[in-house]
Amino acid sequence: MPEYRKDIILDEWVIIATGRAKRPENFKEEKTKVDKTIMGICPFDKGNESMTPPEVLRMDFQGNFVDSSVDWQIRVVPNKFPALIPDAAPYSKKYGVYMVMDGFGLHEVVIHSPEHITNLSELSQFQLELILNVYVKRLQEIKKDSRIESVIIMLNQGKEAGASLEHSHSQIFALPLNPPVIEKELHGTRRYFKQNNRCAMCDLMKFEISEDKRIVFDNENFFIIQPYASRNPFETWVVPKKHYPNFENISQSEIKSFAHCLKMLSDFFYDELNEPSYNYFIHTGPLHTEIENHYHWHFELIPKLSIKAGFEIATGIDICITTPEYTAEFMKASRFFKI
Amino acid sequence: MPEYRKDIILDEWVIIATGRAKRPENFKEEKTKVDKTIMGICPFDKGNESMTPPEVLRMDFQGNFVDSSVDWQIRVVPNKFPALIPDAAPYSKKYGVYMVMDGFGLHEVVIHSPEHITNLSELSQFQLELILNVYVKRLQEIKKDSRIESVIIMLNQGKEAGASLEHSHSQIFALPLNPPVIEKELHGTRRYFKQNNRCAMCDLMKFEISEDKRIVFDNENFFIIQPYASRNPFETWVVPKKHYPNFENISQSEIKSFAHCLKMLSDFFYDELNEPSYNYFIHTGPLHTEIENHYHWHFELIPKLSIKAGFEIATGIDICITTPEYTAEFMKASRFFKI
Repeated sequence: MPEYRKDIILDEWVIIATGRAKRPENFKEEKTKVDKTIMGICPFDKGNESMTPPEVLRMDFQGNFVDSSVDWQIRVVPNKFPALIPDAAPYSKKYGVYMVMDGFGLHEVVIHSPEHITNLSELSQFQLELILNVYVKRLQEIKKDSRIESVIIMLNQGKEAGASLEHSHSQIFALPLNPPVIEKELHGTRRYFKQNNRCAMCDLMKFEISEDKRIVFDNENFFIIQPYASRNPFETWVVPKKHYPNFENISQSEIKSFAHCLKMLSDFFYDELNEPSYNYFIHTGPLHTEIENHYHWHFELIPKLSIKAGFEIATGIDICITTPEYTAEFMKASRFFKI
Repeated sequence: MPEYRKDIILDEWVIIATGRAKRPENFKEEKTKVDKTIMGICPFDKGNESMTPPEVLRMDFQGNFVDSSVDWQIRVVPNKFPALIPDAAPYSKKYGVYMVMDGFGLHEVVIHSPEHITNLSELSQFQLELILNVYVKRLQEIKKDSRIESVIIMLNQGKEAGASLEHSHSQIFALPLNPPVIEKELHGTRRYFKQNNRCAMCDLMKFEISEDKRIVFDNENFFIIQPYASRNPFETWVVPKKHYPNFENISQSEIKSFAHCLKMLSDFFYDELNEPSYNYFIHTGPLHTEIENHYHWHFELIPKLSIKAGFEIATGIDICITTPEYTAEFMKASRFFKI
C-alpha cells in the first residue's frame, strides 16, 4: 500500500510507494565522470593556486589557519563563476508585476585537499574534521556581516549531483535572506514550539529512539537516521543530540563525532552502493534574526538514486520508492556503522 | 550581475546567474535511451493490450470515445505500478510525531498512439488535439468523485525526465489534497486578487505584452512565454488568454490553439535542441474547494537542461544559467513559432 507521510519539521507530504522499488543492490550506479580538469590542468591541485581567485582562508595539515607562505591542506576561495557576488545591494525592488534584487551574497569553494582526490571517501576522518573546522571558521567570519542572514554549506559529489570539477570540494553560499526550505523548517518548528514548548527535532528523535526502526547509528554526540518522510532512497540525516540552532556553535568534541559519521557515510556510499553521486548540506539557523529556541541544526545527505520527474516538479510532492525502515536495516547490516 | 527574481504567482526567489551560461546550441544533449520494452515487448503497442490493466477510456482515430471492440488511437489505463491507489482511505492520522495517510488516489497512463513512437514530436497536431480531449474527458469523469481535490496531468519525455518506457505516454494523477506547488500558487494569486481585485496571471501577461521581451508566440487563444523568474533554461509556459481557473472548462477552439502550441514546442525541442528530455504538466484549479475567481490554469514545460544540485535542494532556490529574455529571442529566431 503506498502511503503519504509528513513530519513536523517541513510539514509537507511525501509519497512512499515501493511498488516499483529497486533492491538496494540495484541502486548501484553506472559511473559517469565529471570534467577532470580545465584544458588538462586542475585548478584545485597543489601548484595551480594562481588559477583560482585569491584565497580567503588557508589551513595547514595540522589544522592551523595559516598564511599563503605555508603549505596547505585546505583552501577556501571565491567561486570563479559565482552565482552570488558581494559587491551588490541586498535590497529588492518592484519591476512591473515582479520583484527583483541584485545577486548579493558570497559563493565560495572549499578545496578539500592539495592532492587530486575525487571522492569524499578518500579523505581520512581527521581530514574531514579539518573541513568541518573550516566550515565553522567561515561561518563565524561571514556572520560578522550583518547583511548576511543565512549560510548554506553544501557538497556536490559526482556529475549527476551537479559537480563541474571532479577534484573534491564543497561550497559555501551566504544569502541576505532565509531561503524557502529554511523558512519552512523555521515555520514548522516555531509552530511546534509554540504548541508544545519543546523542540520538534528533539521530540522527533525521542520518538525515533522509542521506535528503533530508522536510526542507523549513534555515537556520543550524533544520530544517523533515515527520516520517516524520506523524499529519496537512502536520504540520510545526521542530527546532533544536543539542542542548539546554529552549526557555528558546535564544540570540538562534536566535530570529532560528526567527522566520524561523515567518514562512515562516505565509505558506505562509495563501497556499498558503488559510488553514487550525492549532495549534502547543513541546515543551520538564521544568523541575525532573533528566533526562539525552536530550531535544531542538522545535516542532510541526498543520494542521486532517483529522478525528480513531472509529478515531483508539478506538485512539490516527492515519490520515494523505498521505505526508510528498509534502507536503515540495509545500512545497519553493512560493515560501516560501528563505534 | 546575477539577480534574484520572483513573480506574483509562486512568490519564491530564483537566481538568474549567467556567469557560467552555455549558449543554447551547447544545450544540445547527448542522447541516452530509456528501456524500449519489457522483455522485448512494448506493453503500449497495438496488439499487446492485455499487458496493461483494463482500460478506463479508449478513443478512436476520429476522436470518438469507443468501446474495446473498436480500433484505438489513444488508451487510458491504470498504471501497473501505481504511486496511488483508489481503494484506500483519504484520511490522515497521527503516527507518533508524524502524520500518515493511505496512498489514496488515481494514477493513470495515457498511451498516445498504437504505433511505437518515442517522442511527442512524432504526433501530428490533430493527434495532440485528441490527447488534450482525452485529458479533458478524464478530468470531467474524475471530478465526479468528491474525494478528489486536485488532478495533475503530466508527461515525462526521455530517460532524464523520468520516463521508464519509451513509448510516448503521459500520466494523470488524482489526489485528495492540493499539492504544495498548487497551494503556493493558490495562496499567491488569492493574495494578489484580494489586494487588486484582478487576476495575477492576467496582470502578469498584460505586463509581458507591454515589455515584449519574453513572449515567444501568441495565437487566438494562447501565449507561449519564457517566464521572468525562470527556474530552468528554456522553461516554457503556455497561458490561456481567457481567464478561468479550471482546465476542464477549455473550449474546442482553445484545444485546437493549444495543440498548435504543443506541436510547435515539441518540434522546437526535438529539432533545435537535439531531443532533450523534458517534463510538462498542467496546473489547474481545485476540483471541489470553492475559490474566488483568482486562479488561472496554465501549462508548464521544463526541459532537463540543468541539474538540481546541492544548493537548489538545500534552499529551494533554483539557479538558472540563462535569462528568459535570451532564450525567448532564440526561440523567436527559430523557424518554429509561426501562425
